[in-house]
Amino acid sequence: MDVVRRAAAMFDELVVAVAVNPNKQGLFTVDERRGLLADTFADLPNVSTAAFSGLLVDWCREQGVGVIAKGLRSGTDYAYELPMAHMNRHLTGVDTVFLSASPEHTFVSSSLVKEVARGGGDVSAFLTTGVHAALQERLAGR
Amino acid sequence: MDVVRRAAAMFDELVVAVAVNPNKQGLFTVDERRGLLADTFADLPNVSTAAFSGLLVDWCREQGVGVIAKGLRSGTDYAYELPMAHMNRHLTGVDTVFLSASPEHTFVSSSLVKEVARGGGDVSAFLTTGVHAALQERLAGR
Amino acid sequence: MDVVRRAAAMFDELVVAVAVNPNKQGLFTVDERRGLLADTFADLPNVSTAAFSGLLVDWCREQGVGVIAKGLRSGTDYAYELPMAHMNRHLTGVDTVFLSASPEHTFVSSSLVKEVARGGGDVSAFLTTGVHAALQERLAGR
Amino acid sequence: MDVVRRAAAMFDELVVAVAVNPNKQGLFTVDERRGLLADTFADLPNVSTAAFSGLLVDWCREQGVGVIAKGLRSGTDYAYELPMAHMNRHLTGVDTVFLSASPEHTFVSSSLVKEVARGGGDVSAFLTTGVHAALQERLAGR
Amino acid sequence: MDVVRRAAAMFDELVVAVAVNPNKQGLFTVDERRGLLADTFADLPNVSTAAFSGLLVDWCREQGVGVIAKGLRSGTDYAYELPMAHMNRHLTGVDTVFLSASPEHTFVSSSLVKEVARGGGDVSAFLTTGVHAALQERLAGR
Amino acid sequence: MDVVRRAAAMFDELVVAVAVNPNKQGLFTVDERRGLLADTFADLPNVSTAAFSGLLVDWCREQGVGVIAKGLRSGTDYAYELPMAHMNRHLTGVDTVFLSASPEHTFVSSSLVKEVARGGGDVSAFLTTGVHAALQERLAGR
Repeated sequence: MDVVRRAAAMFDELVVAVAVNPNKQGLFTVDERRGLLADTFADLPNVSTAAFSGLLVDWCREQGVGVIAKGLRSGTDYAYELPMAHMNRHLTGVDTVFLSASPEHTFVSSSLVKEVARGGGDVSAFLTTGVHAALQERLAGR
Repeated sequence: MDVVRRAAAMFDELVVAVAVNPNKQGLFTVDERRGLLADTFADLPNVSTAAFSGLLVDWCREQGVGVIAKGLRSGTDYAYELPMAHMNRHLTGVDTVFLSASPEHTFVSSSLVKEVARGGGDVSAFLTTGVHAALQERLAGR
Repeated sequence: MDVVRRAAAMFDELVVAVAVNPNKQGLFTVDERRGLLADTFADLPNVSTAAFSGLLVDWCREQGVGVIAKGLRSGTDYAYELPMAHMNRHLTGVDTVFLSASPEHTFVSSSLVKEVARGGGDVSAFLTTGVHAALQERLAGR
Repeated sequence: MDVVRRAAAMFDELVVAVAVNPNKQGLFTVDERRGLLADTFADLPNVSTAAFSGLLVDWCREQGVGVIAKGLRSGTDYAYELPMAHMNRHLTGVDTVFLSASPEHTFVSSSLVKEVARGGGDVSAFLTTGVHAALQERLAGR
Repeated sequence: MDVVRRAAAMFDELVVAVAVNPNKQGLFTVDERRGLLADTFADLPNVSTAAFSGLLVDWCREQGVGVIAKGLRSGTDYAYELPMAHMNRHLTGVDTVFLSASPEHTFVSSSLVKEVARGGGDVSAFLTTGVHAALQERLAGR
Repeated sequence: MDVVRRAAAMFDELVVAVAVNPNKQGLFTVDERRGLLADTFADLPNVSTAAFSGLLVDWCREQGVGVIAKGLRSGTDYAYELPMAHMNRHLTGVDTVFLSASPEHTFVSSSLVKEVARGGGDVSAFLTTGVHAALQERLAGR
């Protein structure tokens, strides 16, 4: 949320793109994820959501997206994202900018939040009320 | 062993906590691991062992443990442990201290030792006699 | 040049800001640096230059600049820039985006180029003809 | 403050040791620094201050200090502190534990705070009222 | 290719060793990989290929190989390779040298190239004509 | 010593090159350093010493040296050496290989050893008898 809100203040239009991965079943479907994102950023008129499959840069080119904005929690994130950023620019010229997560959020990742939630820990500080409710319901149903 | 012995010299009481993970079968059972640890640190009166499932910090709170001591082999370890340490303090106030592995042990990890042992390499320099024998027996039985 | 050209393609307007440091005498004066920059980016209508003293973010606020774009050659650069980026946002809300240098330029820094040039090495591959000539002249005059 | 308070909760007694460096004149004298520290931690009965010259570990040995606690803002800090920690243990057996700065403080260093204060920025969020007043006075007097 | 060609210029003889992993099926068989490597380096008389199973250092000892040359794309690669290099020297005395990938290749890894190729991206810039044709054929047949 | 001995086992001939820096006065003169190095490696017939001024790669080219071997204590060292290695290859084609310091030496640097020695600490474990005596004498004379 931190990174999306800050990127939305920098660029005219921002699309939060959800990857469709048929080989991997996440906790939420792509449509559910888009719905939660849309609710979360409903107050930002220049933010929308989309789903893509295949290469992100192919989708960018089709949609006329010129810049990918990525959030970084740490230097490890940067090292991980860097080859993809260079590859994406090599393939299509689509460039990447990095925004550093606000210091107080650097330890918050979706995998850690899910792990804590599964273990019964209170993760409400890291999620909107809506996402928290959806997560609780989903984990209870498993 | 290096990190446990050094932490035991700093704190009044040290519990080596073994995670119970029902989804993952290790080379040794939790009881076997606790037995090997108990033998290894039998000379240290302030060191005991325990098993926990769920979140480590919930167990810490139940047991009145205030500080988690983690060993670090490298900056990569530090980057990996950091979000969990912050999350643990956020959730419960249980704090974490890091001890750097002695230089001569920085390349020794349980996964690498097991990989070498499976490939027939001599790992006796990294294990107590008892753990080495147990490992050899276990790998032979597979 | 790589980072400036790429940032200029992302934002409506880009100002290359040269820091005035009265305690440190560089190889070129602030005016000379601005002149070399202006020549280098003469083909980019949305790029201009400026000089500032004091805190960069104070200048940003006065000029209505909302985003600082920084180039990164390496993870070391990222670690170095990160505290300043957070501090700048804390002080004024001015945000920072990072652009990674193109892979083939990651080893090129002004300090290394100057060191090589002083030692008699050929640095023409890293500079425009104009900057190269100015550097040669300046070093010869010392 | 963050790291001192957390370390004070872990250990029976904590001494904040100020290095005396005759070759380097800081913004505050050693006595002034000890005074500011004493004021800052006046509510913590197990925290005291001391000054040392020469090797920190020699002072530790003379004072019967067995463990050095160091705060880490980043992986860069860890990489910097690590050789000294190993050297200190090699020389005297005095061990080091590392505490990670709370996420919201990771970008705050004394050098960056002083740089911002010198440039006229507001650093009151990072300092106690007393330290802030002393800093303002000292910078005004220069 | 970059690292192999550079290592071949440094050492009298270079063997490109392909690991046989019975538990993991790659895109190409070990023989196919050796064939593609042999074609790629056919112009280098001091480069040959081999396959090994078990520990690399055991194979090195059997073959009289004294030095392992590893390519590094990044500091992450270095952190990953380091424990194995130390372990290998501990086990057998076989030493490791690291060659840094040329800057323009630092973002190219076999996993990223395969991911891009599977997504329909053009990876011909990173492969020989022969390897590219083999990859296209293999992916088409899946 | 660790890195020189290991590099000497890999290459036919090894020259330990001492940089002449007229602007910086070290603890020992260039000739003294060459003498201490020659004594230290007197048992290695393929190791010699040399002094160079200007760019290392110009000296390499004059002497017909094709490969520079650098020791690495840490990832920080690697990040520091990398741009110079790329620049050297760009300028002249002279390539660089990296050898990782043995784990037990990773915390030993000449600057830390000198700092400890100046503070009265015992650094005999890190130096040959000859170098230790020379260092003691030099520091006493200051």
